[in-house]
Amino acid sequence: MTASGAASASAGFSTIDHVLMTRALRLAARGRYTTRPNPMVGCVLAHGEQVVGEGWHIRAGGPHAEVHALRAAGGAARGATAYVTLEPCAHTGRTGPCANALVEAGVARVVAAMRDPFPQVDGAGFDRLRAAGIAVESGLLQAQARELNVGFLSRVERGRPWVRVKLAASLDGRTALASGESKWISGAASRGDVQHWRACAGAIVTGSGTVLADDPALTVRFEDGTDCVPPLRVVLDAGLATIGRGRVREGDAPTLYVHAPDAGRPRDLDAEMMSAPVHNGRLDLHEVLKLLAARQVNEVLVESGATLAGAFLAAGLVDELVLYLAPVLLGAQARPLFDGLDITTMAQKLQLQAIDTRQVGNDLRLRLRPAAP
Amino acid sequence: MTASGAASASAGFSTIDHVLMTRALRLAARGRYTTRPNPMVGCVLAHGEQVVGEGWHIRAGGPHAEVHALRAAGGAARGATAYVTLEPCAHTGRTGPCANALVEAGVARVVAAMRDPFPQVDGAGFDRLRAAGIAVESGLLQAQARELNVGFLSRVERGRPWVRVKLAASLDGRTALASGESKWISGAASRGDVQHWRACAGAIVTGSGTVLADDPALTVRFEDGTDCVPPLRVVLDAGLATIGRGRVREGDAPTLYVHAPDAGRPRDLDAEMMSAPVHNGRLDLHEVLKLLAARQVNEVLVESGATLAGAFLAAGLVDELVLYLAPVLLGAQARPLFDGLDITTMAQKLQLQAIDTRQVGNDLRLRLRPAAP
Repeated sequence: MTASGAASASAGFSTIDHVLMTRALRLAARGRYTTRPNPMVGCVLAHGEQVVGEGWHIRAGGPHAEVHALRAAGGAARGATAYVTLEPCAHTGRTGPCANALVEAGVARVVAAMRDPFPQVDGAGFDRLRAAGIAVESGLLQAQARELNVGFLSRVERGRPWVRVKLAASLDGRTALASGESKWISGAASRGDVQHWRACAGAIVTGSGTVLADDPALTVRFEDGTDCVPPLRVVLDAGLATIGRGRVREGDAPTLYVHAPDAGRPRDLDAEMMSAPVHNGRLDLHEVLKLLAARQVNEVLVESGATLAGAFLAAGLVDELVLYLAPVLLGAQARPLFDGLDITTMAQKLQLQAIDTRQVGNDLRLRLRPAAP
Repeated sequence: MTASGAASASAGFSTIDHVLMTRALRLAARGRYTTRPNPMVGCVLAHGEQVVGEGWHIRAGGPHAEVHALRAAGGAARGATAYVTLEPCAHTGRTGPCANALVEAGVARVVAAMRDPFPQVDGAGFDRLRAAGIAVESGLLQAQARELNVGFLSRVERGRPWVRVKLAASLDGRTALASGESKWISGAASRGDVQHWRACAGAIVTGSGTVLADDPALTVRFEDGTDCVPPLRVVLDAGLATIGRGRVREGDAPTLYVHAPDAGRPRDLDAEMMSAPVHNGRLDLHEVLKLLAARQVNEVLVESGATLAGAFLAAGLVDELVLYLAPVLLGAQARPLFDGLDITTMAQKLQLQAIDTRQVGNDLRLRLRPAAP
């Protein structure tokens, strides 16, 4: 457990505290496709185990979780405990400070899962609550709360988005035949499952090679019409070779081309373009991620071929790999998962850790993260 | 359900029948490391749900399952139902016919999971029982009984052993670095798990390349001393280049070299050698398997590199793939899982079906079989 506003261990919390914070975390997650660039937050107001109000942050610019919960509780908020998955804000953004709202409603105790590292909060919310005589405890289910907002925290704490690389491969680690043919290695269930990761992302990043070879639309297509803020589509295209082409320009989602400083921008500027530094003839991925963080992108989903995926890996910029393995074999002539990994001894192998493994249709979905060194 | 001596559907069997046949199948499986080349068989004798005797075939040359169960039951066998996982034998092999023993003991009813396709039985056991006035039903849990003896049935019905290919690979489908280094991709738990597949096999098949590169002993090493008939180690070595070498000659297990007809056999013939036809400069794997079946090998475990594993696959001779996937990446320069698969269109991809997926230590173990066309 890392430092938190009030250094309480989970051991100091009651069973009811755990149950209601779990509820608050579940509520928060309902905003996963819509709250960005804000963090997901859930709030439960209760007297003992009696819930009197709850809410979650649905959309940036709209009311925060605490406000929804206070409205639902009305006068019953007085003397209640507020369970919040993130420290209440103390600053006036597009909405008023939640710490003030909790004070005004007469809440007696606030239990937070974690301190908000956002510079304009960062303990100030807790301070304001305490100054008003409210009991404040933090750190309950903090690991789960951090996992919920892994993208927001990455942007605030590391200055870059959380990078998730999605790949679909055969059991022998091949993403396409030598000819480039890749439709369809993974099954329909896996392609449906990918919509979830796209919808979680503030930006979907691909390379010009994938635009030319596969012409993906990179839009979120939920069959049941689930609400989602369309992710920015980002094409890394140093020379702007693909700017006029493809389905990546179609649909409602915005498209951004990232190019080398010396690329000739076309006169017809109907697409957004951004210049990034180049290293060894390739766009500097560290810089690209910084630029995306400056645009308030919390999570990036990389959907690309072996070259770009390998470049992210080689640069140490992959936080999570979502790998769909289809039960097929494509043979040694087919294309590899990652290019550009220069591994010549076992000591250099990239050690990962599976955090989740499940069957998706006939495919196997593995979520992996770099193993702690 | 395929044809059986008595064409009863499972629907005609009672719950007690199902429970006791399940018990008989579990008993049979206890012989998995020791009964070969015989099939595994279990037997339960019961009056209603009251079990009066049970047994399983432990070792070829020893008593059959029915004899063990009849001995345990003594006089209580009279009027009992006998649950047997395979049709009782009617011929005198190394032991007397079990059908006769069941008749003499006064058993009233025999329920078999399946008919024994072995030519010297093949319905004759059922006939003898019926001729003695015993009620005979067959087909209860037949699919499970066939799975239990998949190797024996392959040898009797197809004239070749069941071929299981074991491979350990990285997530990007690599079995070794470009240098050949492969120790250790999979973890200790996976290497322990491999002992089970070795112990199930009548023969462990490898290639001369693997003997030269990895020098494996290919022996069964159970840490808890579980009993096992040592599998034959088979080195496919067309030119007998490796005959003098390696740990594959050490230990108690026998070793057999399969070579091309024109290979020069060394004068010092302290190893067993067998000649097999050659096609396109390579040993004909169909013929090699026929020779192994003639030696009463039920199950083959292939432990080899990409060349031999790919040759078995390309020849359509892989019945099951046991794939240990370690959560590491080795990069596109590393060695592939299978060489020699000439797949140029998606229609040619080798479609498999996962029959079991589980975590083994930090690795993932997949058991796959060719998908039905």
